[in-house]
Amino acid sequence: MDENATLDRLLREAGSPFDTAGLKALIAGVAAAPPGGDPAAWVRLVAAEPSPELTGRLLVLEAGQRAAADAMVPPTAAERLARLRGELIRREVHGFLVPRADEHQGEYVPARAQRLAWLTGFTGSAGLAAVLPKAAAVFVDGRYTLQAETEVDGRFYARRHVSDQPVTEWIAETLERGQVLAYDPRLHTPGEIERYRAAAERAGGSMRPLDDNPLDAVWADQPPPPLAPVAAHPLAFAGESAADKRRRLAADLGGAGADAVVLTAPDSIAWLLNIRGGDVPHTPVTLAFALLARTGAVSLFIDRRKLLPGVAEHLGPDVEVAAPEAFGPALDRLGRDGKTVQADPATAAAWVFDRLAAAGAAVRRAADPCQLPKACKNPVEVDGTRAAHRRDGAALSRFLAWLAQVAPKGGLGEIAASDRLEEFRRGGQHFRDLSFDTISGAGSNGAIVHYRASPKTERRLGLGELYLVDSGAQYLDGTTDVTRTVAVGTPDAEMRDRFTRVLKGHIALALCRFPKGTTGSQLDALARQPLWEAGLDYDHGTGHGVGSYLAVHEGPQRISKMPGTQPLLPGMIVSNEPGYYKTGAYGIRIENLVLVVPQDRIAGAERDIFGFETLTLAPIDRTLVDADLLDADEIAWLDAYHARVRTELTPLVDADTAAWLTEATRPIAPG
Amino acid sequence: MDENATLDRLLREAGSPFDTAGLKALIAGVAAAPPGGDPAAWVRLVAAEPSPELTGRLLVLEAGQRAAADAMVPPTAAERLARLRGELIRREVHGFLVPRADEHQGEYVPARAQRLAWLTGFTGSAGLAAVLPKAAAVFVDGRYTLQAETEVDGRFYARRHVSDQPVTEWIAETLERGQVLAYDPRLHTPGEIERYRAAAERAGGSMRPLDDNPLDAVWADQPPPPLAPVAAHPLAFAGESAADKRRRLAADLGGAGADAVVLTAPDSIAWLLNIRGGDVPHTPVTLAFALLARTGAVSLFIDRRKLLPGVAEHLGPDVEVAAPEAFGPALDRLGRDGKTVQADPATAAAWVFDRLAAAGAAVRRAADPCQLPKACKNPVEVDGTRAAHRRDGAALSRFLAWLAQVAPKGGLGEIAASDRLEEFRRGGQHFRDLSFDTISGAGSNGAIVHYRASPKTERRLGLGELYLVDSGAQYLDGTTDVTRTVAVGTPDAEMRDRFTRVLKGHIALALCRFPKGTTGSQLDALARQPLWEAGLDYDHGTGHGVGSYLAVHEGPQRISKMPGTQPLLPGMIVSNEPGYYKTGAYGIRIENLVLVVPQDRIAGAERDIFGFETLTLAPIDRTLVDADLLDADEIAWLDAYHARVRTELTPLVDADTAAWLTEATRPIAPG
Repeated sequence: MDENATLDRLLREAGSPFDTAGLKALIAGVAAAPPGGDPAAWVRLVAAEPSPELTGRLLVLEAGQRAAADAMVPPTAAERLARLRGELIRREVHGFLVPRADEHQGEYVPARAQRLAWLTGFTGSAGLAAVLPKAAAVFVDGRYTLQAETEVDGRFYARRHVSDQPVTEWIAETLERGQVLAYDPRLHTPGEIERYRAAAERAGGSMRPLDDNPLDAVWADQPPPPLAPVAAHPLAFAGESAADKRRRLAADLGGAGADAVVLTAPDSIAWLLNIRGGDVPHTPVTLAFALLARTGAVSLFIDRRKLLPGVAEHLGPDVEVAAPEAFGPALDRLGRDGKTVQADPATAAAWVFDRLAAAGAAVRRAADPCQLPKACKNPVEVDGTRAAHRRDGAALSRFLAWLAQVAPKGGLGEIAASDRLEEFRRGGQHFRDLSFDTISGAGSNGAIVHYRASPKTERRLGLGELYLVDSGAQYLDGTTDVTRTVAVGTPDAEMRDRFTRVLKGHIALALCRFPKGTTGSQLDALARQPLWEAGLDYDHGTGHGVGSYLAVHEGPQRISKMPGTQPLLPGMIVSNEPGYYKTGAYGIRIENLVLVVPQDRIAGAERDIFGFETLTLAPIDRTLVDADLLDADEIAWLDAYHARVRTELTPLVDADTAAWLTEATRPIAPG
Repeated sequence: MDENATLDRLLREAGSPFDTAGLKALIAGVAAAPPGGDPAAWVRLVAAEPSPELTGRLLVLEAGQRAAADAMVPPTAAERLARLRGELIRREVHGFLVPRADEHQGEYVPARAQRLAWLTGFTGSAGLAAVLPKAAAVFVDGRYTLQAETEVDGRFYARRHVSDQPVTEWIAETLERGQVLAYDPRLHTPGEIERYRAAAERAGGSMRPLDDNPLDAVWADQPPPPLAPVAAHPLAFAGESAADKRRRLAADLGGAGADAVVLTAPDSIAWLLNIRGGDVPHTPVTLAFALLARTGAVSLFIDRRKLLPGVAEHLGPDVEVAAPEAFGPALDRLGRDGKTVQADPATAAAWVFDRLAAAGAAVRRAADPCQLPKACKNPVEVDGTRAAHRRDGAALSRFLAWLAQVAPKGGLGEIAASDRLEEFRRGGQHFRDLSFDTISGAGSNGAIVHYRASPKTERRLGLGELYLVDSGAQYLDGTTDVTRTVAVGTPDAEMRDRFTRVLKGHIALALCRFPKGTTGSQLDALARQPLWEAGLDYDHGTGHGVGSYLAVHEGPQRISKMPGTQPLLPGMIVSNEPGYYKTGAYGIRIENLVLVVPQDRIAGAERDIFGFETLTLAPIDRTLVDADLLDADEIAWLDAYHARVRTELTPLVDADTAAWLTEATRPIAPG
């Protein structure tokens, strides 16, 4: 009996709706998603209760599919570019834009949408390629200029710093009169296209949207859309039912005079419907589109094959599940009915706005209505995140205790260190995944803000050096993100001075109180002042929003030099992560997550005052603290924080770690 | 021999071009401007060297004209509104907008442009009236809600808080389908009109620009445009010749691809051409329009009668002087020639953009190019402002010493106090005018942020109360603005706590260092932190830009909660003025002007770091300082500041003031 016949039989016996052909397509989709926290979960997409034998065969098939994908050898960069140019000629356009973004404008994109990486080799998290008949360029921001030099072949692409040499400038200079620069309107925001179009017109050329992506036509082994399983996110973690969320938002929508709102951000849809998926790395979302009507009803455009048993029931009768292909026609229908439809120009694609307008809808540009309620965590989410942080702090402390033993002996590599940290985390309750690729940087690698260790780049942790580890996890009850910088052996005076200044900034933010209405932009300088006084600074934001078992970077709040208008509100989680980086030498960052909480015990207060509760629990390396640079309030904060870390974590760790914790959290203040 | 014949003879003998009719018109214009620092200067507009007899007669005529204007009794509010509505019917429109702004969008407007005050009685520095056939409303901001209640008759006008009940909302609710809301396009920015138009269209109505202002048609005794004399601002004070400024800006203009820029802000024109005037109170500008071409040539549209002898020569051959009426045709000409013309949508009127566009110009919206170079003072201006501040500090110290003697005896009124302060200032070298109406507030009046004492409102300075005085002057070499809060008798513990918190915020800003690229918005929280910690705050900005013998409020920099994008640059002057206000009780503000200066002596600095040099010199009331709330750095700042005040001012004051200064600037630190 051949393999296929056996499989057919097992599928039938399990009551699966799939035949072998259908199964093959499903597995291709599954393999196009990251393996995720529970790599076997997807088999329940095939049958609600698969037999052990079926499960085994399915996992073997998936492993084979993943191995085949890994083994695929792409054509050379020259060949890929030539194929794209050929396709553009066939379509009678001159140029094409290839952004890193997918149709959802998120931080992570699935394998299928890695078009920029396939074409140019550039694998950073933001960038754009522009291709014309005789010129091509890759645009990246300051984080990625070095990486682009390594990854992108300079013979075929000019490599540009996107702020110094903007895309618009390149278009205006390079596009020739009468030329047509094409783009995929599903991959760009309307604002981007408006800017590019103005530049193209300055050059005497024009922009043209294409119905389908010419790069997809020439990418022979492009993965299919990912098909990671979608599960319900239980009320015990979400804290508010999807029905209540829908009603709440629908009421606002009606109040604002809109008939429906288009949702294209996967984390908004996940939050609204209390579902979680695994289509992209590290953020537990499923890729989908949705329409929320002022009645509270939702149309969810998603590949049904992704829904685990029970999810349709969880969604309930007011959520209509439709195929992704039905999304466009649904927009047309809203237009034909003369509806007023809201969409967010920061996250929805130009295509959405064009299609709605063409169909006759009154289009209203407004922020995604899920963003703000999602950012303001409810009490259940707050309790969950506190619990997740205790577990995460225990794992990190076990790692730090282990590191204090091992590192001074020499020879420990960055990858081995982060692997060990991941192991400690994996043991924790509700652990699903890391929340991002761990940044594990020894010595000079610590100075690279978005460093990711590879066998080629990794360093050993050397005596007298600093080691920076920025890591986090996705737990069902919360998302964590923490950075600690530790000295291996004895740090020098400059390291201690810089570390203490970073710590002073961290404490200033942790201690600050501010009135209702205050934005993160207003507070950012508090974290930088101690560095500024010494003529130093760091070139990244001070804090980003964090989701609840969702994106580790979420808006609308942030703490940043960039002007912002979103006030910090109770329930928001934000990181507090000042740093200092000495290129070629070392990097320092101290990151805790903090929660915005009302301060109601200030005698004589005339305003509503908020402050921060620190969520993250892990010792801050005392050997790097120069207590002479701290004032009494700062020492009191550090000692109280360490006492809390010790009290909360000791019950959760082994005896060796507990002993290390006692030492690592000893007060600075005498007595 | 009758008066007219004598005058005719005197005019002829002085070689004046004026006949008596022309002279009458000139004097009407002169009387429509504020008297200014040198009330007799204008007679040189009549003749370069007028005889004493002619001078005497001219001043008598002007005094008569001013007395006649003061004696004019306007119709009742009901009558004024009825006349305007009648005029609107004649013009076949339904409504009309009456803003406080004039054609230059400045803070101060001339008597002729006080349309909002004439119509509604409201005299605040910002506001708008909207009149429809059956409804009318006056919109003011939070500073002016109380004042509007007093000044505006609620029987005829709804009185609205402009943020809570925006103009656009009122238009959308009140305008009826098919109605036409008219406006004077010279008095509104294009952004305003775009917002109003959207609201009118939501209501099914429309907006219509009018060629001339219907209110002017019904304001029978509306003053003519002001004709205060225009003088050259000597290079010894300006520090850079007008020719150099024109060349510098013209080069940038050419580089940006514009053929010309429209200048409508009087302080920009004054700065660019090194001229000063007196058409509005307290800001030494002349009302005019200008076009700067990429060649560096300027067309200045101004009433020639305002130019004092020698000014035309000062302007030189590259500055063409034309009549104000020639401004519109000049815009048409630029359009006909297909030029690219730049204008600032924040300061230029909608009319400018409409006219340029209608004539065929390519209109580019960009910031007024004079703003930034004007804000960054050159070394001559910086030296000038330091000298002006020494003089101003001496005058203020003489006042404070006098006050310390007189106030505790009781009975001193707010107006008498500010009159005395003005007297001390008037004696100073290069003094021309106050830089704004002095805020002299005792007790609860100090809590009104924009208080202006009147015989009806003024209070006596009482024992145990605080007295707040915010004042400044225009000197030829610099503009000052300073606030001191002093205790009369013994302050209570709460006053000292609040004062000390305000002082801590003031010192935090004075001491802070920040990297190149930092905006005032980023620093604002430093000044508020000590108040926030106690649940307190203040509802105004922390700092505004200040000109050099120009506007006491100038941009583009500011220190504010509001998001901003303009970095603080060396040479910028900005106020440092945190405060605290307890309604019905007292107000506290401590204001010094500070200069942005590079900090080049920080060992190991990796960034360009800037900081502030304090310009203002006057004691801060030590009896209000609770030294227990200050840390060592704060005490060191205060003692060093006071030592500097003592050292710099003692040589400039009388013996009594010197003795008082010694006591008032005694160190806080023991020993």
